[in-house]
Amino acid sequence: MQYPEPIAQLIESYMKLPGIGNKTATRLAFYTISMQDDDVTNFAKSLLSAKRDLHFCSICGNLTEDDPCPICQDKSRDQSTILVVEEPKDIISMEKMKEYHGLYHVLHGVLSPIEGTGPEDINIPSLLTRLQKDDTVKEVIVATNASSEGEATAMYLSRLIKPAGIKVTRLAHGLSVGADIDYADEMTLFKAVEGRTEL
Amino acid sequence: MQYPEPIAQLIESYMKLPGIGNKTATRLAFYTISMQDDDVTNFAKSLLSAKRDLHFCSICGNLTEDDPCPICQDKSRDQSTILVVEEPKDIISMEKMKEYHGLYHVLHGVLSPIEGTGPEDINIPSLLTRLQKDDTVKEVIVATNASSEGEATAMYLSRLIKPAGIKVTRLAHGLSVGADIDYADEMTLFKAVEGRTEL
Repeated sequence: MQYPEPIAQLIESYMKLPGIGNKTATRLAFYTISMQDDDVTNFAKSLLSAKRDLHFCSICGNLTEDDPCPICQDKSRDQSTILVVEEPKDIISMEKMKEYHGLYHVLHGVLSPIEGTGPEDINIPSLLTRLQKDDTVKEVIVATNASSEGEATAMYLSRLIKPAGIKVTRLAHGLSVGADIDYADEMTLFKAVEGRTEL
Repeated sequence: MQYPEPIAQLIESYMKLPGIGNKTATRLAFYTISMQDDDVTNFAKSLLSAKRDLHFCSICGNLTEDDPCPICQDKSRDQSTILVVEEPKDIISMEKMKEYHGLYHVLHGVLSPIEGTGPEDINIPSLLTRLQKDDTVKEVIVATNASSEGEATAMYLSRLIKPAGIKVTRLAHGLSVGADIDYADEMTLFKAVEGRTEL
């Protein structure tokens, strides 16, 4: 015996999400049936709307309803700095910090020879175009993740952009604020010692 | 800065699901945007369809598109046995076993004095009505979970139904097939010793 068709299809849909297997999908599907009508209707609507109404900004690659995105449109922001991130959600993390007021550029990935991701597969050409178009940009902050691919991408960008006379910087590595030293891994500790600052 | 409205709403919808917090909801929402159009459309459709097209069987309380459900309609099944489960999904587990050919009754919960769930709050009255209506039922198998509430519900049903001359049985407790004895908890081991069978 199978589940009734509507619930079998819902389980299948939930299973398409990352990290959700058969058991969790089944639990979520049964939970959905017990949810308020309105909540389920809104869920369905927001799925369709997220897919239909969101686009990538033609300038920076950020997720946005309008093109260009509100950040690229905001002339009060510091036009001389571009912070390069891997994914649109990294922009939100940066904006939550409230201390960065420049522009952004979203790569939508990192260089990865293993997965065959080259410079043309991610948003690197559009970054170069932005830098060539006018010479207002003085600094590119590479805020890719601290993974080996993130580091490699940062190195690649630095070699590409520096010759044009633009400063290329990378986020500092070190201990997280509030972190215990005995929980920190060796590489983080090494970076923290290497990058020590005078008091 | 906030997420664009469509994605903020999608994150909120995902957060209504059990066990999904802000971080996971955000990850799922961004993943949704990268999914195929068709998959997202089907997801939205299946959400609405599961909520709209599924009902509880008026006889046994199973989830079904048709009323009565296919199991209650199937006259070839053994009409003399009713297996009582807590939730509709338990029926699927039983049916996967392929060894039970009787009818079902879904309680949609268990007795729980702590949460204030009494016999009238779950599908016990409709079970009694079924048993009173005709005297074809000879055995009620109580397959509630092996939790304390499940046990209490089984005891309650047994006291209620036995006086009517209907056999009331409970699923056996013991070691799972393939289980290691040194991983079994004390209660399970006790039940396994108590219910030992002759070879």
